[in-house]
Amino acid sequence: MTNGQDAPGWSTRPTTPEGWVERAREVAARLAVDAVARDREGATPYAEVELLKDAGLVPLLAPAEYGGGGQDWTTAYRVIRAVAAGDGSIGQLLGYHYLWAWAARLVGTPAQIEAVERQAAEEGWFFGGAVNPRDDDLVIREEGGELVFNGRKTFSTGGKVSDVTVLEGVLEGTDKHVFAIVPTDQDGIVFAGDWDNLGQRLTESGSAVIEDVRVPWAAAAGYVARADGYEFVPRTYNTLNVPLIQLVFTNFYLGIAQGALETAAAYTREKTRAWPYAADRKERGVDEFYVQEAYGDLQSKLWAAEALAERAAGLIESINAHADNVTPEERGEAAVVIAAAKQTAIDAGLEIGTRIFEVTGARASANAVGLDVFWRNIRTHSLHDPVAHKRAEVGRYALTGELPAPTWYT
Amino acid sequence: MTNGQDAPGWSTRPTTPEGWVERAREVAARLAVDAVARDREGATPYAEVELLKDAGLVPLLAPAEYGGGGQDWTTAYRVIRAVAAGDGSIGQLLGYHYLWAWAARLVGTPAQIEAVERQAAEEGWFFGGAVNPRDDDLVIREEGGELVFNGRKTFSTGGKVSDVTVLEGVLEGTDKHVFAIVPTDQDGIVFAGDWDNLGQRLTESGSAVIEDVRVPWAAAAGYVARADGYEFVPRTYNTLNVPLIQLVFTNFYLGIAQGALETAAAYTREKTRAWPYAADRKERGVDEFYVQEAYGDLQSKLWAAEALAERAAGLIESINAHADNVTPEERGEAAVVIAAAKQTAIDAGLEIGTRIFEVTGARASANAVGLDVFWRNIRTHSLHDPVAHKRAEVGRYALTGELPAPTWYT
Amino acid sequence: MTNGQDAPGWSTRPTTPEGWVERAREVAARLAVDAVARDREGATPYAEVELLKDAGLVPLLAPAEYGGGGQDWTTAYRVIRAVAAGDGSIGQLLGYHYLWAWAARLVGTPAQIEAVERQAAEEGWFFGGAVNPRDDDLVIREEGGELVFNGRKTFSTGGKVSDVTVLEGVLEGTDKHVFAIVPTDQDGIVFAGDWDNLGQRLTESGSAVIEDVRVPWAAAAGYVARADGYEFVPRTYNTLNVPLIQLVFTNFYLGIAQGALETAAAYTREKTRAWPYAADRKERGVDEFYVQEAYGDLQSKLWAAEALAERAAGLIESINAHADNVTPEERGEAAVVIAAAKQTAIDAGLEIGTRIFEVTGARASANAVGLDVFWRNIRTHSLHDPVAHKRAEVGRYALTGELPAPTWYT
Amino acid sequence: MTNGQDAPGWSTRPTTPEGWVERAREVAARLAVDAVARDREGATPYAEVELLKDAGLVPLLAPAEYGGGGQDWTTAYRVIRAVAAGDGSIGQLLGYHYLWAWAARLVGTPAQIEAVERQAAEEGWFFGGAVNPRDDDLVIREEGGELVFNGRKTFSTGGKVSDVTVLEGVLEGTDKHVFAIVPTDQDGIVFAGDWDNLGQRLTESGSAVIEDVRVPWAAAAGYVARADGYEFVPRTYNTLNVPLIQLVFTNFYLGIAQGALETAAAYTREKTRAWPYAADRKERGVDEFYVQEAYGDLQSKLWAAEALAERAAGLIESINAHADNVTPEERGEAAVVIAAAKQTAIDAGLEIGTRIFEVTGARASANAVGLDVFWRNIRTHSLHDPVAHKRAEVGRYALTGELPAPTWYT
Repeated sequence: MTNGQDAPGWSTRPTTPEGWVERAREVAARLAVDAVARDREGATPYAEVELLKDAGLVPLLAPAEYGGGGQDWTTAYRVIRAVAAGDGSIGQLLGYHYLWAWAARLVGTPAQIEAVERQAAEEGWFFGGAVNPRDDDLVIREEGGELVFNGRKTFSTGGKVSDVTVLEGVLEGTDKHVFAIVPTDQDGIVFAGDWDNLGQRLTESGSAVIEDVRVPWAAAAGYVARADGYEFVPRTYNTLNVPLIQLVFTNFYLGIAQGALETAAAYTREKTRAWPYAADRKERGVDEFYVQEAYGDLQSKLWAAEALAERAAGLIESINAHADNVTPEERGEAAVVIAAAKQTAIDAGLEIGTRIFEVTGARASANAVGLDVFWRNIRTHSLHDPVAHKRAEVGRYALTGELPAPTWYT
Repeated sequence: MTNGQDAPGWSTRPTTPEGWVERAREVAARLAVDAVARDREGATPYAEVELLKDAGLVPLLAPAEYGGGGQDWTTAYRVIRAVAAGDGSIGQLLGYHYLWAWAARLVGTPAQIEAVERQAAEEGWFFGGAVNPRDDDLVIREEGGELVFNGRKTFSTGGKVSDVTVLEGVLEGTDKHVFAIVPTDQDGIVFAGDWDNLGQRLTESGSAVIEDVRVPWAAAAGYVARADGYEFVPRTYNTLNVPLIQLVFTNFYLGIAQGALETAAAYTREKTRAWPYAADRKERGVDEFYVQEAYGDLQSKLWAAEALAERAAGLIESINAHADNVTPEERGEAAVVIAAAKQTAIDAGLEIGTRIFEVTGARASANAVGLDVFWRNIRTHSLHDPVAHKRAEVGRYALTGELPAPTWYT
Repeated sequence: MTNGQDAPGWSTRPTTPEGWVERAREVAARLAVDAVARDREGATPYAEVELLKDAGLVPLLAPAEYGGGGQDWTTAYRVIRAVAAGDGSIGQLLGYHYLWAWAARLVGTPAQIEAVERQAAEEGWFFGGAVNPRDDDLVIREEGGELVFNGRKTFSTGGKVSDVTVLEGVLEGTDKHVFAIVPTDQDGIVFAGDWDNLGQRLTESGSAVIEDVRVPWAAAAGYVARADGYEFVPRTYNTLNVPLIQLVFTNFYLGIAQGALETAAAYTREKTRAWPYAADRKERGVDEFYVQEAYGDLQSKLWAAEALAERAAGLIESINAHADNVTPEERGEAAVVIAAAKQTAIDAGLEIGTRIFEVTGARASANAVGLDVFWRNIRTHSLHDPVAHKRAEVGRYALTGELPAPTWYT
Repeated sequence: MTNGQDAPGWSTRPTTPEGWVERAREVAARLAVDAVARDREGATPYAEVELLKDAGLVPLLAPAEYGGGGQDWTTAYRVIRAVAAGDGSIGQLLGYHYLWAWAARLVGTPAQIEAVERQAAEEGWFFGGAVNPRDDDLVIREEGGELVFNGRKTFSTGGKVSDVTVLEGVLEGTDKHVFAIVPTDQDGIVFAGDWDNLGQRLTESGSAVIEDVRVPWAAAAGYVARADGYEFVPRTYNTLNVPLIQLVFTNFYLGIAQGALETAAAYTREKTRAWPYAADRKERGVDEFYVQEAYGDLQSKLWAAEALAERAAGLIESINAHADNVTPEERGEAAVVIAAAKQTAIDAGLEIGTRIFEVTGARASANAVGLDVFWRNIRTHSLHDPVAHKRAEVGRYALTGELPAPTWYT
């Protein structure tokens, strides 16, 4: 990464969707410069998040009236993909940020939405989250009209590099989930820094201990005061969190795959030698038929996966156009197409991450080249939930029209 | 197929792209009723082409002012796909027809375009073609100011069921190709009816003998009279024939694949039994995890291939918007994306055509069920030109940005 | 097939395993001559079975002392494979015959084994069977000390071309299965000739109606007279029928795949043209890199599948060496390896059956060439029982060492 | 690895092939204990080679009369595979050692063979090699009746951990290659320790600088004194080095794949949870159908690849039985089958290395688990020479019977 000191900043602000994507590509180009070295070091990505802020990408979805980019999710997905092509971890961080920044829209009251979006835009918040629903161990007790969070999340994302954190917990003795946005930098939130996994190493995805973090009831997203206490009024749009984030995943997988293919292609062009023992000996690696065929196969698969992700984004967009009265069918169909897009992206990404070595050659396995980062990144995150169950979800729809019941994963 | 006698005709005419696609689906539904039986019989598809005419699909691309549908290629591709889902052969016939009906646009002079489109719409022409460029054996000699075609094409498409045939030949002693539209029903054109291949059996794709077919110079598409004879003035748009037809192929492959998946799904739902010897025995075939997972995998691959075909159609559309000054780069990039879409469609189609048996079961291999028609149809036509070379074409672009030089196949 | 009239018979008898396999290859060569035409005609394969008899392959497993070939199953499997390379249907017929001819060994008493094998060898029996265990509808009632079979089997194999038929039914009011060998040519056995499926068309696998077929108790395989009636004394070796027949399947799939590859290779060598539009244009199809690579890929997969089938045969052989005290573990481990071999053979066979077209070219899709018979043959029979459940069977063993409980399919 | 201090040594010596393979499994079990940690540390594997010596595996191929194991290559291959299942790097080191220890047999004179094998067995030599033939930069000049090696090899294997090193260079001004065995520990041989690649990290495969290493002519393998100088008399067996080493590769790939599958299976059994959101929720990960099916699929592929490697070993063995008069056809056919086995092993290994994560789950991506070592190890070494060219080699044989001309890679 070429950081702020070394590289010119951005003095202007994109005004079109294409402009924002181009901006994301510039960010990716800076990240790509030392992505391999930064992956190896595994340091907390403060500078990287700073770069995202400098480039103006952080408030992309925030309303223009508050100083945000005023863009839609289609553009956000493309931006995530573009950034991930330069650095998969940073693409993930940005994507999760967009989702958490959208949390108010998903579950908040109109007043909360306005308040959060205004403040987030004005203060340039980068969002993190401690919201892994498979760990049911953040417990909330009510105390003096406040909600007090305590517990531990095995996985969070963003952690130290975030300005605010979305907490998710369960009200003690109930099955009511509460989301709330809190400042990250407070004594009650301690990130263990224990994310030491195969890939997506710069995502600060380790465990978090939450101790007596206090939140006023008014900050409990979507809860409204009733005579007998606070109540959450559900609507279908609440459950859009899963399709939204699953398509975030899909797009950073696609970005990583694209980064893999482009990085490999550059290597092949510049360094790969033809096989000297071939009957029909070629001059350069790029002239070998099998090299051309393999790149064509991989590029075709990637394009197809991208095209399906774009189609899925269209479904999200048309839902967002009437968030207040989205039907379960619309939600379900979007979820199914996104599940298909995700599977397709994973398949393409893993195959690209593995086969690029065959078209770059033995010397490209040097750690100095670092071509393995792409396979590691996709392999790691694509385990988030079992792809076999995603396939079955799509299959049930194809077979019987069954839509997935909204859960934390479907 | 439920023919005109048995089924209600269409009294109205679609007014939107969606309406046309819906119309195509209705046609497909009629074709699907006896597609297996008609495939086995292999009779000349007169009634099927009549159905296409009745449904109004034949003049889909013709200008509305002449009574045509006034639709663009994006819609045409969707219509081809929808029809092919009911009967792959008829989807191919319709797709080739659209291409030949577009031949005037590709190579004709403005006056020819107007004349052909007007007459074609008024008379409801169904186009066939004898234009296989790998057979260089249709020779044209000039005789009394007329062009006289003689020779033989190993493969044609449409043949007897067409009203007019596009001939392609080479002016004797030159390398000048000439296209001309002639009435199919004339003594000089004899179709051997020798198309006896594995699939796409109703496409009348056999050989044709052309004997002394006469055409005035004025009908030689794109040739203009000069002081010293007729001359063809090339433009980049002439070479769009290959991308256009390759995307026609792609779309009827996709239609066939979709037909396969839907036909299989209906069978699985209605007839497939669960495996009685499973430890975790299910009640019905649709409840088996592997069945659900397989359908999901196949559906995801099909959706991805469709989405890429749609993206490719968008490139065609934007080229058509300025046919007179399309650049070689635009043409080349469209050709590459179409090559990718075609590969993806073939991969998906062959896999679907093979794996549907695993999720329908042993009894579905009965000829009375006829589930093999899908594999046969895609397997046969997808050999049109080697997919390995298509992959290499995409690969060269991905590696070095090289665009395919326009030929009859790239 | 070059029948007995046209071709020299075999005057000598092989004396080594290699000799028997070579004999099978000669049979295959004769069958291959008109396999495509015979497949299309779908006539009852009387001449084909006669050819197997002429060649001496029918009593291959029978003891030499009775005039049999005295060979073991390893050789029988290779012979099945070799014959199936020439004609998949005939390979299946022969393989099923070997299994039914072995039925006495599997479930008979020592006296029955001796009697059956002696008579079978002396009279040159070709065995068929009406033993589909998923149809529980052959009912046996006892009448005057005889067993009387009545009912219907949806699938049988061999049918009219067999000399004797193995019947399998259930004693009325019990869950006792009885196997018995009866003459095929009797009024009580009527084959419907209704096998009209995609592949393996010459196997006479249609339904059979059994009406009052009488068998003395003495012929009920494995039943011995007790004071209070006849009783079947089970031993583990009884359950070897499933591994034995599943490896029969595996070997004729492998033979079909080998036939596909060899037939395609001959076509490619003799007829396939190089792609004229390639940048690096070759002279002949065999010179194209993608053609060479595809054949190598397919050949490697086929060899690997064959090698695993050979390993599985070794396990069968070592069990046969002590049939009387085979342990459930030995039986189970053989079943698992055979399940793995079967899956591998199916995967290789379907891929070969589909991809051979890509390396032979468009004209090879002509029905006169008939290259589709291989895909059809494997696709059809490989649905016998769901390969997904076979994979799961192998998987449970790999994961936990669990062995499949003996059923009719595992 | 549990080293010599902590674990009991081996007091006896295996007496059967099975015994040697069992010994190798014991070694593998010790190596597996800390394979992940040792891979990360990347230290020179002195202790590991000591373990191989302690276990008696080093002189496995040496004649029993000199104190060697007296085993054949079939056993050696199985031993390599077994060791690699515990640690891929050490499997590679041992395999290369066997090949270099066999160098005298391949190219030496009878006297040299005897001398080398006797001394190697007596002194317990562990062999390394600096023999990368694609670097033509080890030059030999003759000086005072001695051969003096100078130059640099980009890749060697064994390096510091070897007792002797096989040098390969070219006589200055000629194209004569000379192999010679020299003590590793001498001033003229300097290993850079610069092997820093993705996998097989403990193989000491970095570059070596050779400076004035002197060898008497008598040590030049296969050269005999003639009136006019030393001459090398070639025989076909010389060229068996490539099939031998390519099958070494194949076997350690198979071992790595087996290690992957077994390690993953243990994890799945012990830790993998069932998916809580499934409609048909299971209790444990091992109960999920997709988990069982995936293990079955992977196990089947691995068994098939192993079986083909065993078949290839049989071809090597039959050649070794008459090394003096092996024909080019025998050599060529063995090379082709080995190329097929190698491809199959790589395919299986990469798929296993990638898919094991899907059946172990997200937490298995922790670096503390280290499941990526298998993919890294196979991915890295399988680039040694392009698998596409291996496939083409097999394909040419399948198509036309063409045998690969002996080179350093075919």
